[in-house]
Amino acid sequence: MGGFTPSLEQLIDQFARLPSIGRKSAQRLAFHILSMSDADAKKFTDSIMNARTAIKQCEICCNLTDDSICTVCASKSRDKSTICVVEDPRDVIAIERTHEYNGLYHVLHGVISPMNDINPEDIKIKELLYRLADDTVKEVIMATNPTVEGEATSMYISRLIKPMGVNVSRLAYGVPVGADLEYADEFTLIRALEGRKEL
Amino acid sequence: MGGFTPSLEQLIDQFARLPSIGRKSAQRLAFHILSMSDADAKKFTDSIMNARTAIKQCEICCNLTDDSICTVCASKSRDKSTICVVEDPRDVIAIERTHEYNGLYHVLHGVISPMNDINPEDIKIKELLYRLADDTVKEVIMATNPTVEGEATSMYISRLIKPMGVNVSRLAYGVPVGADLEYADEFTLIRALEGRKEL
Repeated sequence: MGGFTPSLEQLIDQFARLPSIGRKSAQRLAFHILSMSDADAKKFTDSIMNARTAIKQCEICCNLTDDSICTVCASKSRDKSTICVVEDPRDVIAIERTHEYNGLYHVLHGVISPMNDINPEDIKIKELLYRLADDTVKEVIMATNPTVEGEATSMYISRLIKPMGVNVSRLAYGVPVGADLEYADEFTLIRALEGRKEL
Repeated sequence: MGGFTPSLEQLIDQFARLPSIGRKSAQRLAFHILSMSDADAKKFTDSIMNARTAIKQCEICCNLTDDSICTVCASKSRDKSTICVVEDPRDVIAIERTHEYNGLYHVLHGVISPMNDINPEDIKIKELLYRLADDTVKEVIMATNPTVEGEATSMYISRLIKPMGVNVSRLAYGVPVGADLEYADEFTLIRALEGRKEL
């Protein structure tokens, strides 16, 4: 109980449930909502409802899309022989921003994590294997996060894929461009040494 | 354009318009909205719509309330001879938290600010004067923020009230409890010296 009138308390409470929004921020947001014009408030709630009903997973790559097939999968100019496997739709955006990759994607929507009771069948591995059934795809690039779980998921999937005669690669590990060696952790440095390239 | 599907972009954009929410936070919030259960999402949008329709200003003190009169004004145990004048409903909460003040409040909903084209008639001064018309109120405590505009508003109102035979006081200035003198700004120290009390 913060002392505000009940419907305001409820609104603050709803905002405070959102990730990384503390009670103070929730208050500020709630007051902002109250100060909005009716049209803006409607736009805000409509965008929430609309996103929740309109957005679904692409039937091919499981990325989020308003249509049944996402723009990447529907594009005629993308290289259909390569699939980059990522954990999350946000990772697709990150890779797209490089403008260097012209293949397709596959979004797992999570990683295998026995601790959190997330098993291989809970993420989109089956859908990936299905895409490899014909011979179009020549290479799968594993781009899960460089975490223990991301690694394990990547290993698990590559073991399933390799027998199908598809090349499997992994994003390179190393020191981030522009970073200071002094502050690199030892695991990153070990990987950077292992992956060193001749000049 | 961030590369997400249009309805997701719209949702992110709506969150990014909220105060102190950057694009990255807006993304995180939008993804959280998508991952919510239908019931939770409905609760969230309902609380927005409900707060906007249910909350109005108390007919007496202009604080936010679900009813026509707020709980403080409606309370029989509050001292009706004192009114504490604040800028914002959040200030009421701050003072209520002290559990030291038992009078009534008056919420101005702003301060006089010629730079932002906010004139005396744009804030709830008229409503305050109306409350002083009978002789119930003996003291008005000005608790506007210790800013130039808060000060000016406080001075403006006290000049209107004094001729009505009501005592007008101002929250004390001084060094905040628990703070370090070394870091106090000179204006605060000057006020603290001026306001020194005999021990």
